[in-house]
Amino acid sequence: MTITTPSPTPPLQVPTPSSIHSAYTLITPYIHRTPLLTCRTLDKIASTPQSREALLGTPFENTPPANPQIRFFFKCENYQRIGAFKARGAFHALLRLVERVGEEEVRRVGVVTHSSGNHAQALSLASSTLNIPAYIVMPSISTPSKIAGTQSHGAEVIFSGSTSVEREAVVRDVQARTGAILVPPYDDYDVICGQGTVGLEMWEQYKEVQEGVEGEGKDETGKGKGKGLDAVITPIGGGGLNSGVATFFSDKETRVFGAEPSFEGGDDCRRGLDAGVRVESVKTLTIADGLRTPVGVLNWKVISDRKKVAGVYSVTEEQIKAAMRLVLERIKVVVEPSAVVGLAVCLYNEEFRRLVEREAPEGWDVGIVFSGGNTTVEAIGKLFSW
Amino acid sequence: MTITTPSPTPPLQVPTPSSIHSAYTLITPYIHRTPLLTCRTLDKIASTPQSREALLGTPFENTPPANPQIRFFFKCENYQRIGAFKARGAFHALLRLVERVGEEEVRRVGVVTHSSGNHAQALSLASSTLNIPAYIVMPSISTPSKIAGTQSHGAEVIFSGSTSVEREAVVRDVQARTGAILVPPYDDYDVICGQGTVGLEMWEQYKEVQEGVEGEGKDETGKGKGKGLDAVITPIGGGGLNSGVATFFSDKETRVFGAEPSFEGGDDCRRGLDAGVRVESVKTLTIADGLRTPVGVLNWKVISDRKKVAGVYSVTEEQIKAAMRLVLERIKVVVEPSAVVGLAVCLYNEEFRRLVEREAPEGWDVGIVFSGGNTTVEAIGKLFSW
Repeated sequence: MTITTPSPTPPLQVPTPSSIHSAYTLITPYIHRTPLLTCRTLDKIASTPQSREALLGTPFENTPPANPQIRFFFKCENYQRIGAFKARGAFHALLRLVERVGEEEVRRVGVVTHSSGNHAQALSLASSTLNIPAYIVMPSISTPSKIAGTQSHGAEVIFSGSTSVEREAVVRDVQARTGAILVPPYDDYDVICGQGTVGLEMWEQYKEVQEGVEGEGKDETGKGKGKGLDAVITPIGGGGLNSGVATFFSDKETRVFGAEPSFEGGDDCRRGLDAGVRVESVKTLTIADGLRTPVGVLNWKVISDRKKVAGVYSVTEEQIKAAMRLVLERIKVVVEPSAVVGLAVCLYNEEFRRLVEREAPEGWDVGIVFSGGNTTVEAIGKLFSW
Repeated sequence: MTITTPSPTPPLQVPTPSSIHSAYTLITPYIHRTPLLTCRTLDKIASTPQSREALLGTPFENTPPANPQIRFFFKCENYQRIGAFKARGAFHALLRLVERVGEEEVRRVGVVTHSSGNHAQALSLASSTLNIPAYIVMPSISTPSKIAGTQSHGAEVIFSGSTSVEREAVVRDVQARTGAILVPPYDDYDVICGQGTVGLEMWEQYKEVQEGVEGEGKDETGKGKGKGLDAVITPIGGGGLNSGVATFFSDKETRVFGAEPSFEGGDDCRRGLDAGVRVESVKTLTIADGLRTPVGVLNWKVISDRKKVAGVYSVTEEQIKAAMRLVLERIKVVVEPSAVVGLAVCLYNEEFRRLVEREAPEGWDVGIVFSGGNTTVEAIGKLFSW
């Protein structure tokens, strides 16, 4: 994917927890510290066995449903700037580019990417904030609201056909004309470090909550019990968020998992892990439209490391819709379908639920990343109209 | 509406700010301190003049659109227990009943109300928490989710016809059989004091925000500038919330306003104020279904006092829908249509916008009460499908 990036970062250098701490220092002035929410109603639902009917037609159909204890901590990146975690990676990639290439040069040539989703808006916001010209290649069939959203932050939108070959050709045209530097949506060291700051914040905020709880319990030392989250689950599309978060927690006891839609082979990462080789292309129209891409090369290197990612689980379209309904109606927070695949795993993936039950009779504190909230009332209506 | 309530509270005793402070002390262990949110995107939209087209067919059609500066502070009672502010009034009414009549007696006879909405769920939760039997009379045509929600908290649901005559007859039957004490949904001293605690929390939280802002600005004293919110707007249905909040602010400089749907005469309070007499019955099918009731007698006594409520404004169904879209898509918070009438007034009611422009060139800090969030994905879909 890298075309002419003049980056001195060696290819496939793998991020470390300390590179994520550095990224956080760099991007803090530009991003929101999003809330970490709890919801007892959802804990109760997750901590109740599924019905036997729900397991019909699955490998678990003749076994008693698992009865795990799960306490959720929802990291609300839908409240991040531009409505998704992507703002973190985009700001970090640009700030590092300025460090390496120099402000004047970056402002002279600009940056380019192709995306029809949240990365487009994130790069548009980050570049206008830092006074860097941005060219965003979008398929001409993109929804008008996404085009308008991207333009509203100041980027120049350039239209292309909708296949990746057509889009990449237009990116090369832009680069030939302007010299603009490519900022990939996920398969990039600096983007991964930026997204990993989601993990760092969850870790800090969970500690704050624990210290608060202990404080209420009149703990004399005033210190938290030091235990981190038992597990964190993020969605996996290209893998920027998951590989960043897994990197951050790689020197801690928190286990990181990934979640994917299974529809039309959208679970490319899970299938790749089974086969021992990265799946290079995916063609799915899952409702989790942020997760339709294959995992990137550098992302795969992190995610396929079992010391970093403990497992990847997939869920059906109906399970994604059911989880989304619970988030909208019970937590009363607006998320996009891609954001709830991790919650859907906890609620409906019997393999994951058995794991929790087996590993911890006292249950797990599970961090769930709500990756974004960019949807419309029409899209919600359409999703639930049948 | 009072039938056989053995309350020693004299009829039409008017609540005071101190009675709301007392209510807060009583209910604090049972309710959530809901967040006070800001949203720069919404501030920007409210602080931009409406288009001239938007004023066509209104008394303002040949005048330049107002250009007020508005900064919002959203009080999210959709995150209150049972998803609406009604939990405050219900807990307060029951705790006061226990104080007056005695725990044993209240537990022996129980409480009764008729409601198909948030008050039913609130009274159900409060009575099960306090181990008091509750009988909720609901029209048999109520939506199954509302019936289930009410039952899930432990109350006994008793069905009736849907006219108020039919419902009140069933309430009297229940009282004859059990001796249960009526807890009205809004026209009640203790209920009003409970709802008024929304105002108290907004006042405290706004002060905290101001002190935080000053702190960041390195103010040496560390004190807030002492200025409260310029205005607070709440929805008006029966008027429990508005009269409570207006009572709380009656000894402060903050002006309190009310907001109503104009559809099919749903703006009974505004019309009553114009005519100088309370409108006693309303028949509207506005989408703001929590606001279909006329203002209660005691509520009217507070709201019609110009020293307490500075004005009541109404909005159309389309304006309510437009405001609801902005809250869902931009603030990414799930609210019910009744919750956004105050925001709709700030965005679309030209009379109100002119008032803000005229009164304060530097603009107003406006508190908006999002009264509740009990809706479904189907209801959202239906609302925006035409």
